[in-house]
Amino acid sequence: MATNGKARKPPAKKADPGKADSRGEILRAAAELFMQFGYAATSIDAVAESLGATKGHIYHYYGSKADLFFDIQTAAMQRLLEGVEPLAMGKQPALERLAAMALRHTEILLTDLPMQKVAVQGLERHLFAGVAALRQLRAVLKLRDDYEQLFAEVIDQAIRDGVVVDLPPKLLTKPFFGAMNWATVWYSQRRLQSPQAVEEIARVLAGCAVRGLLVDPAAPAVRRLSLFSEHA
Amino acid sequence: MATNGKARKPPAKKADPGKADSRGEILRAAAELFMQFGYAATSIDAVAESLGATKGHIYHYYGSKADLFFDIQTAAMQRLLEGVEPLAMGKQPALERLAAMALRHTEILLTDLPMQKVAVQGLERHLFAGVAALRQLRAVLKLRDDYEQLFAEVIDQAIRDGVVVDLPPKLLTKPFFGAMNWATVWYSQRRLQSPQAVEEIARVLAGCAVRGLLVDPAAPAVRRLSLFSEHA
Repeated sequence: MATNGKARKPPAKKADPGKADSRGEILRAAAELFMQFGYAATSIDAVAESLGATKGHIYHYYGSKADLFFDIQTAAMQRLLEGVEPLAMGKQPALERLAAMALRHTEILLTDLPMQKVAVQGLERHLFAGVAALRQLRAVLKLRDDYEQLFAEVIDQAIRDGVVVDLPPKLLTKPFFGAMNWATVWYSQRRLQSPQAVEEIARVLAGCAVRGLLVDPAAPAVRRLSLFSEHA
Repeated sequence: MATNGKARKPPAKKADPGKADSRGEILRAAAELFMQFGYAATSIDAVAESLGATKGHIYHYYGSKADLFFDIQTAAMQRLLEGVEPLAMGKQPALERLAAMALRHTEILLTDLPMQKVAVQGLERHLFAGVAALRQLRAVLKLRDDYEQLFAEVIDQAIRDGVVVDLPPKLLTKPFFGAMNWATVWYSQRRLQSPQAVEEIARVLAGCAVRGLLVDPAAPAVRRLSLFSEHA
């Protein structure tokens, strides 16, 4: 299915002032189609059509459908990493950092939905025929691992602080991310909600994710978290 | 893609002693393929091939790919409903029922993975061309709504009991199911884990799901829950 044999065009062929925008537009349009129809059933033609562009326009940026697919994942994971990494590195207690990370993660999910769907739901359901994609696949999996590791480390610290239940941090990241990432299955941006309503949903999801890990959510340190200030 | 125009064969044409098994086998094989390749990219031929059967064998049971897809969802949702409904109807306090329901739900997910994947991840990503599928679609969505409603009602009762945070029960079901259902994205049955290991994962996921809703997981009523007896 992947057309990796195709010669990749150099990225800077035309002086196109709207290039960054074009690339972002292609990624978003392709993400919508991949999520709606699946990888196999989505063609470069369909991506071009949904943008009112030519197939050549897409191939100007991407050598193959697989390239396009991986670039969606890379861009979406990088957006998460850039948003969350500074919060992980702060000086605050682990629990405070974890709550801030969970909220930022959920806000990005809900406001960047099609791209994030592709990124967080991963590659499992999409098959890549060629070995050519293996290098890209590893790079994306590495990004995702790094991202989960950020959380696992803060969770580990919070366990040592005695506020999170004493279970393997990697295992705890599963229901933790699940409480938030499941939104990529049930949430629909088409509902056109106000930013306040989206923010409130993000707080509920991140709140349940964090509370699910806690030994005692009624503890004073937890009650002070801004994440729970409105609904604890 | 759906071949609803095809004449549906009466279900009892042959006296086939292995019929119930055959139907279950077809459902499981088709579920694996739908989840791996997506609805559009999966053909009746591929389902037959993966079973070493003929296309006619599949059409003996199912008039179309859409019928087969809906029957997977129906069978999987019914399995959940049958497992969980008796627990919802018990006389125990709401929190105790909720914990038992969460654990049963997760155990079924993890042990019946391909079928449950199709059921819990829903139809959003799969397109149905024909209007013929609308009736079936509504029936499946109704089953799923009924199932979520079972949980929403027990959550509502637990809010009135003062043990679950006071937020709309329907909204709370989202991160609650997310903590558990996300396993259909990350969990792989191919790891071949022992029943004890699977049970332990189920307890961690259900535990985080329930704890995520609680006002105070350190409360005595919570500590008495068998769900938390091993790792609270």
